[in-house]
Amino acid sequence: MSKAELSEDELNQKHAEKMRRKKEARDKIIATKTIEKGLLVVHTGKGKGKTTAGFGLVFRALGNGMKVGIAQFVKGKRDTGERHALEKFSDQITVVSTGEGFTWETQDREHDIAAAREVWEKAKAMIEDGEHDLVLLDELNIVLRYDYLPLEEVLGVIEARPTMKHVVVTGRNAKDELIEAADLVTEMTQVKHPFRSGVKAQIGIEF
Amino acid sequence: MSKAELSEDELNQKHAEKMRRKKEARDKIIATKTIEKGLLVVHTGKGKGKTTAGFGLVFRALGNGMKVGIAQFVKGKRDTGERHALEKFSDQITVVSTGEGFTWETQDREHDIAAAREVWEKAKAMIEDGEHDLVLLDELNIVLRYDYLPLEEVLGVIEARPTMKHVVVTGRNAKDELIEAADLVTEMTQVKHPFRSGVKAQIGIEF
Repeated sequence: MSKAELSEDELNQKHAEKMRRKKEARDKIIATKTIEKGLLVVHTGKGKGKTTAGFGLVFRALGNGMKVGIAQFVKGKRDTGERHALEKFSDQITVVSTGEGFTWETQDREHDIAAAREVWEKAKAMIEDGEHDLVLLDELNIVLRYDYLPLEEVLGVIEARPTMKHVVVTGRNAKDELIEAADLVTEMTQVKHPFRSGVKAQIGIEF
Repeated sequence: MSKAELSEDELNQKHAEKMRRKKEARDKIIATKTIEKGLLVVHTGKGKGKTTAGFGLVFRALGNGMKVGIAQFVKGKRDTGERHALEKFSDQITVVSTGEGFTWETQDREHDIAAAREVWEKAKAMIEDGEHDLVLLDELNIVLRYDYLPLEEVLGVIEARPTMKHVVVTGRNAKDELIEAADLVTEMTQVKHPFRSGVKAQIGIEF
């Protein structure tokens, strides 16, 4: 029988039954999730939202009264909105940044490597300390991709962090080793108006 | 010649040249982007980060001194972190919510439809007014998917909004018509530790 043939009453009953089963299944799953630990979260992919979602996590943590460290590896002058919003939480945050734009702004590899190292040393201290609850390593993936920092060193520090510390890494082209080490990885994919360019939505992209 | 055979000096020069070309290309593109208008942004997909990135945009807007409207269609009790963080911007925000959990918490279709309608009417007013600069319609896609609100009505209101108003819609299973109408669509895909389950990373997922 199709949905259209059901009466409103039948639809409502069917819905209640379906949702009851869903809730049962969900409650059962939640009951098994008892481990609490700091998560390694990675936002990668070519789409928008990697850094934005990273800052979303930052504001959620700040709202929960947590102490947050932010290390910006390749941004600086942009994102003034976040900067101003963060000022309201100045007693809860530490921000370190290269203060430079993207690498194509500087066009100087040695300078970029030195800048990455400087930010990393400060980020490392925040990952290792007993003070910060969450550390955002914004655009670290770009720095790792260009081999401006040794992957082994970075992974070693992240994996040796205090048990309850959350670390969030953003940037496209996340290294496989980082993805393997992570607890939660989201790939942000840009959906490019497939209809407008005449491509059917089903091909390659699930909505 | 492989990268390893280049001296540091050669590597640096090569890098500077590559970045110079990148910057040229980027500047050229940016010069063509002169239109300013309110964007319709959609975060969809099964991965984490849709709502989080939505709130990231909210905090960025708040930091820029904008007025923000937030309509939560199926969340309420959760996300207390964001709630507390938003309190710091109470003069810049309007929050409307069903105050209920997900639909499997209520298990009552008629109640859910009425709740969706109530939130929508308030959201509609924020989309239409001259006061809010950005409106987040959190989890609206879920409501549309269940046909709790007529898609045509929602799209009509969004498309008729004031020119400079930004609208951000989150939730999995975004309707095709919404994606077609959007300026920017990001699909959040959950990457489920492909290495741990023995699946090679290349299959189906690009890192």
